[in-house]
Amino acid sequence: MTKQGPLQAGNNLDPWYHHYAERAAGLKASEVRALFAVASRPEVVSLAGGMPYVAALPNDLVTDAMSRVMTKQGPTALQYGSGQGVPILREQITEVMALEGIRANADDVVVTTGSQHALELVSKLFLNPGDVVLSEGPSYVTAMVIFRSYQADVDHIPMDADGMIPEALREHIARLKAAGRTIKFLYTIPSFHNPAGVTLSWARRLEILEICRSNNILVLEDNPYGLLYFDRPAPDAIRSVEREGVVYLGTFSKTLAPGFRVGWALAPHAIREKLVLANEAAVLSPSSFTQLIISEYLSTADWKGQINTFRGVYHERKNVMLAALQEYLPELTWTNPNGGFYVWVTLPERLDSKAMLPRAVKELVAYTPGTAFFADGAGRQNMRLSFCYPTPENIRVGIRRLATVIRGELDLLDTFAGTGSLNPPPDEQRFAAGPPNIS
Amino acid sequence: MTKQGPLQAGNNLDPWYHHYAERAAGLKASEVRALFAVASRPEVVSLAGGMPYVAALPNDLVTDAMSRVMTKQGPTALQYGSGQGVPILREQITEVMALEGIRANADDVVVTTGSQHALELVSKLFLNPGDVVLSEGPSYVTAMVIFRSYQADVDHIPMDADGMIPEALREHIARLKAAGRTIKFLYTIPSFHNPAGVTLSWARRLEILEICRSNNILVLEDNPYGLLYFDRPAPDAIRSVEREGVVYLGTFSKTLAPGFRVGWALAPHAIREKLVLANEAAVLSPSSFTQLIISEYLSTADWKGQINTFRGVYHERKNVMLAALQEYLPELTWTNPNGGFYVWVTLPERLDSKAMLPRAVKELVAYTPGTAFFADGAGRQNMRLSFCYPTPENIRVGIRRLATVIRGELDLLDTFAGTGSLNPPPDEQRFAAGPPNIS
Repeated sequence: MTKQGPLQAGNNLDPWYHHYAERAAGLKASEVRALFAVASRPEVVSLAGGMPYVAALPNDLVTDAMSRVMTKQGPTALQYGSGQGVPILREQITEVMALEGIRANADDVVVTTGSQHALELVSKLFLNPGDVVLSEGPSYVTAMVIFRSYQADVDHIPMDADGMIPEALREHIARLKAAGRTIKFLYTIPSFHNPAGVTLSWARRLEILEICRSNNILVLEDNPYGLLYFDRPAPDAIRSVEREGVVYLGTFSKTLAPGFRVGWALAPHAIREKLVLANEAAVLSPSSFTQLIISEYLSTADWKGQINTFRGVYHERKNVMLAALQEYLPELTWTNPNGGFYVWVTLPERLDSKAMLPRAVKELVAYTPGTAFFADGAGRQNMRLSFCYPTPENIRVGIRRLATVIRGELDLLDTFAGTGSLNPPPDEQRFAAGPPNIS
Repeated sequence: MTKQGPLQAGNNLDPWYHHYAERAAGLKASEVRALFAVASRPEVVSLAGGMPYVAALPNDLVTDAMSRVMTKQGPTALQYGSGQGVPILREQITEVMALEGIRANADDVVVTTGSQHALELVSKLFLNPGDVVLSEGPSYVTAMVIFRSYQADVDHIPMDADGMIPEALREHIARLKAAGRTIKFLYTIPSFHNPAGVTLSWARRLEILEICRSNNILVLEDNPYGLLYFDRPAPDAIRSVEREGVVYLGTFSKTLAPGFRVGWALAPHAIREKLVLANEAAVLSPSSFTQLIISEYLSTADWKGQINTFRGVYHERKNVMLAALQEYLPELTWTNPNGGFYVWVTLPERLDSKAMLPRAVKELVAYTPGTAFFADGAGRQNMRLSFCYPTPENIRVGIRRLATVIRGELDLLDTFAGTGSLNPPPDEQRFAAGPPNIS
């Protein structure tokens, strides 16, 4: 009786094979998942993950906040709370967002189980099967997993060193509209992009917003890294100039710690109402306990000073990574992020980052292949390197090992193909559709 | 360009009205939501909510566990974790489930953000629009909200004092199959049912499992209250006799505290794999911080003794509630739960619990109208009374106020109708399709 479309999930060893919903087919284990399990061994230098360096957060800041919360309002912290989140924390969240030019009312904030869950809830609210989500190419892996899990298609807009290219966005929208497709929203990470490491310029923020306004496309602005800038702040958030057309996502995972799973959405009023209902259906209420600890931390600790500490840690590590790339792999190209966690590397054309990964893990270094960040199979010539978690010393070790792997791959290709240049032809030194931001 | 089916959500004051997914129409604010906001004022005795009495949990148990976690493994607690949950906690969860006869491997456990989120993930994995979920009638409100949010229909199986009636289940399945409907799973709360307060007998557990097996219907066994029994334990879980055909949901919200938002699913292997992927897409990983605190608590505190404390608290409150009902409203009928949080009350036929609620709130007492627990509009003659949170003294005050309201309603009806019996005709003293379990 159950429908069995081409999207049917499961396999014949599973007695419930014919019972899954069609959308379950969108939930597939990553091809590199098994390899990353191996890569988590301590002897492997992982440049793959996106884990913040929480060791830079003094334990007693958390312990003290937690003790005070339990003393002052233990039963509240242990109880169910509001589906929208703790009111005082929502007020404090508006103060955090004000640092990026956003003026907001706490009533428009919905606290979620990490900003990942805000992404899930927005997707559940908006995406019908066959809808299109626009996003940068490359884009955040687990956002695309969600979009696919609601049977939407991702259409990638190319980027260059200044972020998404407005003219390309215009062209893609026109093409999709001509094909009769329904575009539900533009998903974008404007500041210190994951994985590309680039930042959308202020002029482009305004231009892209205008394109979305004129095409009646909602903007989903995901900003986990905005406050983690290095030399200069990122431009103000897109939400700072547009209230009705933007759902903005923020999180404490990078400015404090991901273990609490506290993020948020700031949404236009009608959407906010529906997000609260969706949040209640999904988790009843986000954790009162972790929300109140964060609220107490924000009230009593020097949280801006702590963000400065994180900025210093990541800035140093980025510098070490780029210096090591220059020293060991000068023939590659890479982006030069002014914040965040990631460098996007372009390999010589002949190399395939996904095929090369097992060899890299054997050499005790891991990275994320570029293909993980595209919905359409692109990215073989790219890799994402994370400088957020490994120590500066390990970053140098990791890049040195990576150089060994890449040289070995190229030697192998040379042996079989008889050609020998390490440098790809200039027209292959591109970053998606745009020019690379060479360090 | 956007489809606008009859299920379209939103309204014309919302500029994104035409953008919502069809499923968003299933997410509606409860009709009694606004009233409950009023009912949360301190002068109102609320017999409506399902909040556990967390004040019975000593603060220092939590504070001590948390301090030790931060000392021993602070960076792990603050970091992202596994999408399946912390391994040691999953081991401990198997020990908790063993108390209800379940033999399980920790590898088949998925930790979720409360068991509510396990319900959401299972629904996302299994429900196509138009599918049918079987559940007791009445059933847990927010489970039905989830099922509807995935555009599934809920078909209610009547209950009596021994829980769901197997013969009715058979009939409903046959009727639905004859109508060509796809039944995805049976959602059941076998022990100390919310809202009905009854417990499925052991014989019926076996019979219902056999019906589901022979009809290839998955059983979703939700067991938040099982360990909170009064005089004698509930029968063993359905999962104790069937491994492949049951997804079992558990939680620490009632045996410890809901503020942590930690629950779990125990699932057959193939389903478990998909649940982990769905969990990762939704929240990346459940909170390491709260999981490790619970794990430490289970390792070091007398958690079974704490559950006994909770049992004592709730047992006393149930006794007080039933005594007060007997004293102030002897003409009504109600169930006599042997555990859990709830009593299900049947009113005289002429009364409508939903219409009566504003008057009750005016008299400073709140309850949940029976209609909230049915997907099909039934339940006007019922109400759910919760004895979990108010003090014994307040329970008596609340029932006394409720008696005033009910007498007032009946007087009003008498004035207008000219008939005067407080006792409904015997054939209306029914509990759904079965006889009442009169205290």
